[in-house]
Amino acid sequence: MDIKPFAAHEPPYYAVVFTSVRREGGVGEYGEAAARMEELVKEVPGFLGYESARTPGGLGITVGYFRDEEAIGVWQRNAEHRVVQQQGREEWYDSYSVHVAKVERSYGFERG
Amino acid sequence: MDIKPFAAHEPPYYAVVFTSVRREGGVGEYGEAAARMEELVKEVPGFLGYESARTPGGLGITVGYFRDEEAIGVWQRNAEHRVVQQQGREEWYDSYSVHVAKVERSYGFERG
Repeated sequence: MDIKPFAAHEPPYYAVVFTSVRREGGVGEYGEAAARMEELVKEVPGFLGYESARTPGGLGITVGYFRDEEAIGVWQRNAEHRVVQQQGREEWYDSYSVHVAKVERSYGFERG
Repeated sequence: MDIKPFAAHEPPYYAVVFTSVRREGGVGEYGEAAARMEELVKEVPGFLGYESARTPGGLGITVGYFRDEEAIGVWQRNAEHRVVQQQGREEWYDSYSVHVAKVERSYGFERG
């Protein structure tokens, strides 16, 4: 077995951790909006990528990676994104939290 | 509807983002080890909490929150934790990545 350490991105960069609990029954056009947001965020200069997971019936965590604060600001001020954030509070989420954090180091493992 | 902004923890604090892809069939004593790690990490001074999600058959994301670098170091050097990390590379994971990040701000929403 070959263990290869690797860095996901070259630090420093930012991670925006978004954890959420979906509202029961509050589905609406969630899937459509999520797909549109994925399309939009990729256009932000300095967007590096994202990872997402959701336990069925439980917590969802999405982590977006950005080169710097400026890139995060561009995304957070995006007009379409703001409309969807509002819709999220009104319809889709029972709760969420956002942590904006500067990554100091990263490492990982991939099976060879 | 009552929207309440809140901070998860008082910054600055650290988030350790652990994303992983499980190995097919590589179950072993994973559940037991995960429960033991949860028990152990709670004993670390400066451990603030964690959140975890896994898409069935897909990505898992666990975010641990710690008061400072020292608390992260205590956890990463824990002997039992190191044995389980090794077991993770040998048996449970196809890949994982770790991002250690200093949280600069946090906010959230809870349905009233």
